[in-house]
Amino acid sequence: MIHDKLISSIQNPLIKKIKLLQEKSRERKKTGLFVIEGKREIQLAKKGGYTIDQLLYSKEIIDFSIEDFIADFPETSCVEVSYAVYQKLAYRQSTEGILAVAQGKSHTLENIHFSSKNPLVLVAEAPEKPGNIGALLRTADAARLDAVLIANPKSDVYNPNIIRSSVGCVFTSQIGLGSTEEIISLLKNNRISIRCAALSASKTYTESNLTGPLALVVGTESSGLTDEWLKNSDENLIIPMKGEIDSMNVSVSAAILIFEAARQRGF
Amino acid sequence: MIHDKLISSIQNPLIKKIKLLQEKSRERKKTGLFVIEGKREIQLAKKGGYTIDQLLYSKEIIDFSIEDFIADFPETSCVEVSYAVYQKLAYRQSTEGILAVAQGKSHTLENIHFSSKNPLVLVAEAPEKPGNIGALLRTADAARLDAVLIANPKSDVYNPNIIRSSVGCVFTSQIGLGSTEEIISLLKNNRISIRCAALSASKTYTESNLTGPLALVVGTESSGLTDEWLKNSDENLIIPMKGEIDSMNVSVSAAILIFEAARQRGF
Repeated sequence: MIHDKLISSIQNPLIKKIKLLQEKSRERKKTGLFVIEGKREIQLAKKGGYTIDQLLYSKEIIDFSIEDFIADFPETSCVEVSYAVYQKLAYRQSTEGILAVAQGKSHTLENIHFSSKNPLVLVAEAPEKPGNIGALLRTADAARLDAVLIANPKSDVYNPNIIRSSVGCVFTSQIGLGSTEEIISLLKNNRISIRCAALSASKTYTESNLTGPLALVVGTESSGLTDEWLKNSDENLIIPMKGEIDSMNVSVSAAILIFEAARQRGF
Repeated sequence: MIHDKLISSIQNPLIKKIKLLQEKSRERKKTGLFVIEGKREIQLAKKGGYTIDQLLYSKEIIDFSIEDFIADFPETSCVEVSYAVYQKLAYRQSTEGILAVAQGKSHTLENIHFSSKNPLVLVAEAPEKPGNIGALLRTADAARLDAVLIANPKSDVYNPNIIRSSVGCVFTSQIGLGSTEEIISLLKNNRISIRCAALSASKTYTESNLTGPLALVVGTESSGLTDEWLKNSDENLIIPMKGEIDSMNVSVSAAILIFEAARQRGF
C-alpha cells in the first residue's frame, strides 16, 4: 500500500528510527530490524524469504514505476520521502532512490541445513572488514555454496557495509554464526571434512582432493587461523605464493580455494 | 642522517607538504613525490628501487630502533615528529609510527619490459576502487606476474588507499599505465595473447590453455570490458557462476583466472 502522505522532515520518527538502524548494531539487535538500500538488494531479500516491513522511496530519484515495484510487496507499507530526506538516509553515493526496513533472520547454527549430499561450505574465522565479508558472500553466491559459516563474528551480517559490498548476496546464501567450537561440532556431526588454509604443514590446494563434502576454512589476514581450527583440520591447504609478501586479501584466497573445488567438481 | 630538531607543529612547512601529497593527486603529479606509511611498505619501496627522500617518525609509536632502520637509508634525512603531529599525518588507524616521502617512478608503457620468455600479465581496464586495485596488486605479487597494466586509469598508483590496501605490493610489481589502444599495441608487439574476461561468447576459463605468453584482461564490475578489448581478444574466458548475481568482485575474478593460469603452469 502506498501512503498519501510524503515525509519531508528528517525529524520524523520513522526517519530517525531508520538512521539508528543503519548506524547501530545494537539497535538492529534490539529491534530485529535492519535497512536494505537499492532495488536489486530489496528484491534479493524478498527472494531469500525476508519479510519487508516498509519501503521508502524518493520520486525524484527512482527510474522505475513504484506502483509496479510495490505490486510484488502486497503486505508492505510504502512511503514517499522528499529528496532531501532520502539523501540524508542514503548510504550509497549512487543511490537508487529506494530503501526498505526488513526483519532479520536468525543465523544460529541450528538453522543450518545441508540439503546437498556433497556440501561445499566456506568458514571464515573472525573476518574483520565488512568489505571482505561482502566479497566472500558474492563468491559464495557465484559458486552456490551450501553455507557460509562465520566463526567468532565481529559484526552482525546486516551491517550496511556488508549488505552494500555483497551487492545483496548476504540474502542469497545460508549464513550461520557461531563460535569456532560450535562450528567444528556442526561440521563433524555432518561428516564434513575440514580443510584449513594455512601456511605450515600444508598440501598445495590443487593437489588436494576437493570433491567430497568439505568446508574450506580461512582465518584473518594478520594472524591466520586459531589453533582450535588447526588441531581439528583434516588437511591443511596452501596457495603457493612467490612474491615479496606471503599473504593475499582473505576474500581473494577464499575465492581461489572455492573455485578450485568447483573446478574439481565440474562446476 | 637523523636530525636533532623535533617537529611539533602541524604548521611546519614539511608537515603541510606531506599532508598535501597525501590528499592531492595533483600535488603528487606536480612534485613527482608521494608518501609511504609503514615500516614494511617503506622497505618494499626501497627494495623495489624507489628513492626515499625523507623519513619521519614518532618515538612514542615505533617499536623498533630508528638508528638500525635508518642504517639502510644512508642518503635519507630523518626527522622526529611529535606524537600529535604524527597522528595528524597518519592515514592508518593502527599506525606504525614511521612514514616516508619518496620519489615516484614513471609508469609509461615504454618502461615495461618482459624479461620472461613466457610472460603472464594482468590488465585491468579503468578499475574504480583503490581497494580493488590494492587487492589486484597483492595477487600480482603472490603470483609474481610479469606486469600489471592499467588501461585508462582513474587514479595515480600512489593514492594512499592503493598503497595501504596493496600492503606495499604497489612497489613489488612492474606497473604500466596507458590507454586501452596503447596497451593492446604493446601486447600485440610482444606476441602476448589477449584473454578477456567476458560473459558472452566465452570459453570456461579452466578449459582454456593458459600456459603460453598471455594477458588476462578484466573490466569494471558494472560494465565489463569495452568493445575495443573484445574486438582484439584472442579468446574470451568465463568463470561459471551459478548464483543469483552474475558478477564477483573484480579482484576476486582476476585472482581466480590468475591462479588457474598458475596451476596450469605448475606454479
